[in-house]
Amino acid sequence: MISVAQALQTVLNSTQGFGVEEVPFLKSVGKVLKEDIVADRDFPPFNRVSMDGIAINHRFFEHGIIDFNVEGIQAAGAEQKTMTIDSNCMEVMTGAVLPINTDTVIRYEDVQIKNGIASINLNILELGKNIHSKGKDRIQGDLLIEKNTIISAAEIGVIATVGKATVKVAKTPKVIIVSTGDELVEVNENPLAHQIRRSNAFTLVSLLKKLGIKAKTSHIADDKEVLQQKIANYLKKYDVLIFSGAVSKGKFDFLPAVLAELKVEKLFHRITQRPGKPFWYGVKNNKPVFAFPGNPISTFVNCLAYFYPWYYKSVGIKVKEEMAILGEDVSFKPSLTYFLQVKLENKFGHLVAFPITGNGSGDLASLIKTDAFIQLPNDRVEFKKGEVFPILKYR
Amino acid sequence: MISVAQALQTVLNSTQGFGVEEVPFLKSVGKVLKEDIVADRDFPPFNRVSMDGIAINHRFFEHGIIDFNVEGIQAAGAEQKTMTIDSNCMEVMTGAVLPINTDTVIRYEDVQIKNGIASINLNILELGKNIHSKGKDRIQGDLLIEKNTIISAAEIGVIATVGKATVKVAKTPKVIIVSTGDELVEVNENPLAHQIRRSNAFTLVSLLKKLGIKAKTSHIADDKEVLQQKIANYLKKYDVLIFSGAVSKGKFDFLPAVLAELKVEKLFHRITQRPGKPFWYGVKNNKPVFAFPGNPISTFVNCLAYFYPWYYKSVGIKVKEEMAILGEDVSFKPSLTYFLQVKLENKFGHLVAFPITGNGSGDLASLIKTDAFIQLPNDRVEFKKGEVFPILKYR
Repeated sequence: MISVAQALQTVLNSTQGFGVEEVPFLKSVGKVLKEDIVADRDFPPFNRVSMDGIAINHRFFEHGIIDFNVEGIQAAGAEQKTMTIDSNCMEVMTGAVLPINTDTVIRYEDVQIKNGIASINLNILELGKNIHSKGKDRIQGDLLIEKNTIISAAEIGVIATVGKATVKVAKTPKVIIVSTGDELVEVNENPLAHQIRRSNAFTLVSLLKKLGIKAKTSHIADDKEVLQQKIANYLKKYDVLIFSGAVSKGKFDFLPAVLAELKVEKLFHRITQRPGKPFWYGVKNNKPVFAFPGNPISTFVNCLAYFYPWYYKSVGIKVKEEMAILGEDVSFKPSLTYFLQVKLENKFGHLVAFPITGNGSGDLASLIKTDAFIQLPNDRVEFKKGEVFPILKYR
Repeated sequence: MISVAQALQTVLNSTQGFGVEEVPFLKSVGKVLKEDIVADRDFPPFNRVSMDGIAINHRFFEHGIIDFNVEGIQAAGAEQKTMTIDSNCMEVMTGAVLPINTDTVIRYEDVQIKNGIASINLNILELGKNIHSKGKDRIQGDLLIEKNTIISAAEIGVIATVGKATVKVAKTPKVIIVSTGDELVEVNENPLAHQIRRSNAFTLVSLLKKLGIKAKTSHIADDKEVLQQKIANYLKKYDVLIFSGAVSKGKFDFLPAVLAELKVEKLFHRITQRPGKPFWYGVKNNKPVFAFPGNPISTFVNCLAYFYPWYYKSVGIKVKEEMAILGEDVSFKPSLTYFLQVKLENKFGHLVAFPITGNGSGDLASLIKTDAFIQLPNDRVEFKKGEVFPILKYR
């Protein structure tokens, strides 16, 4: 048995990258950026009019002139024009280039235009007003998005602006999720009295989908030879193997033995935690094998507590630990790290975790009412309302 | 001009459903459930062994007996067996049905088995120990997942368990996102000095993708006739139209006029907020038209502040308002609701919002450094560190 911290460190010591691929930029949402995005030109690329109105030479206004002949219009998307007579004005549109020989924009709200003459209704006017000047936000060559950022809508806008029609992102690992257990039947089957339907494999598929990983699934009966043959094949074909079940002390829990025979090096088996204690973890040729216990909550929490961090580190994402405030006193006697299901509530900016106690690690339906697990350390028995602990969110 | 609260209420008053579709359960992740999920049998469906070990009749242990002949094995997935001799024991595996004529399970850790006899190393043993009894979690017919829940990995496990190979979910609306502006060129083009690349349409596509909506995009030049013709067609083909640009006071901001001519009823134009003030909103035959101002941050914040709540209500999701604690003093003079960009940090369970001031609504790249907008009300000028306000998160 090892501690949660030791187990996590072991898992994090066996991460690896899966290479880089180039995808059309709109397909990159949710993926991990694997190149720096730099400004291809200044932002904005020209002195940009930021209000609809008129552009003038400020010095005339300074000298008390408020009426200006309208010489023409500078539209957004039109080539930059030149105002030929210094004391005239040009009508200018938001997004347009500021015309040559003008330096200040007055918005339509502060102007009256009649018979080709614009009169300004202002007493004070700042030089350069309503102009978003060239390079004000960023200059050409500036780093806009750092490598290893998760691409969201905000990044998509910038990537489009700098003209990256395709973008380099982290490849995701090839993962197979294998359920075991002779009691399991398929979702579309009617179980007999002693059977239940497969569910853990699909829960895991959904948890991995949230990371952008499209995992395959498989089911293997509790038969040592079949297990050995199939797993040998999966170890060749996939980057990561995830199991659910067959790692405990049962007569038909063949997995640890089979994995040993296949020369998967065991890095640990059993962690001082509840639920999820009998988690078996090993590697072969740098390929990790996550063999989770078969109880639904055990599988679920171990995926969040170990596979997620393993994946984040593998693809280069830094994830900040999230914390929540315990909403009720909790007492837990066993000398184990307790992953307690909680409902999270944002109470005036305070993230409060209310414990929801299910009926143990088999109570799948209890996950519906919770949002996260709060991680209570194993060196104490009493945990007080108001204390702060790390959480593993799954919504 | 109307207030943010009035604008939001107007938008929420024009929601509508888009019907229900049935999809394979594994494709339902992220979608909105449109049927109640009930237990098809008891959970667990039988008295389920929850530890690998032996099953006995407790009364023999009560009478001081600690040695039991092993009569056989009850494996998970095997039909329920009967223990024929009351004073014997059966080996039982996690997930198995408890054999008939047994009532208590002792885990292998507390037993020694030698020559077909199991000896129990315990002084105290509770009746019914290590049995997850039939119906303990839920009974047949119990409501497990309520209609209108967003389906996550937790729900997938339950849906699989009750045998719902397909599941009813909310259909998403057909949305077209239309950018306007003659200054825009495509992402793979090289803009001339006075041009920039399209980006808002793709930002919006990504923001909608987060909701599970696959939106189409289009670009229309600043030409009144073309606008009118194309929009007339979109109003027939789509459930929702989203525009970016052409709603302000510019000479080529034809959109409000064109929409009026097409008999789209204007519900409001301009909101007392910054950024995003010139937002135009209307409906035709119950189809909403969101015409956002063309500045990147304006489009972005309006999508979060108005389209998101409109969509949530339309498909039946109740979303709780999220709040954060201001991490610095902020001063904002205009009598407008201020959507201020912030970086969120979870500090010991406190969600703290640190303002990041960009260079105004055109500064797309500033979104990279922030996670949310904090909504500061328009009836005050000073906002103090430690005060709590609603946030619109986008990561």
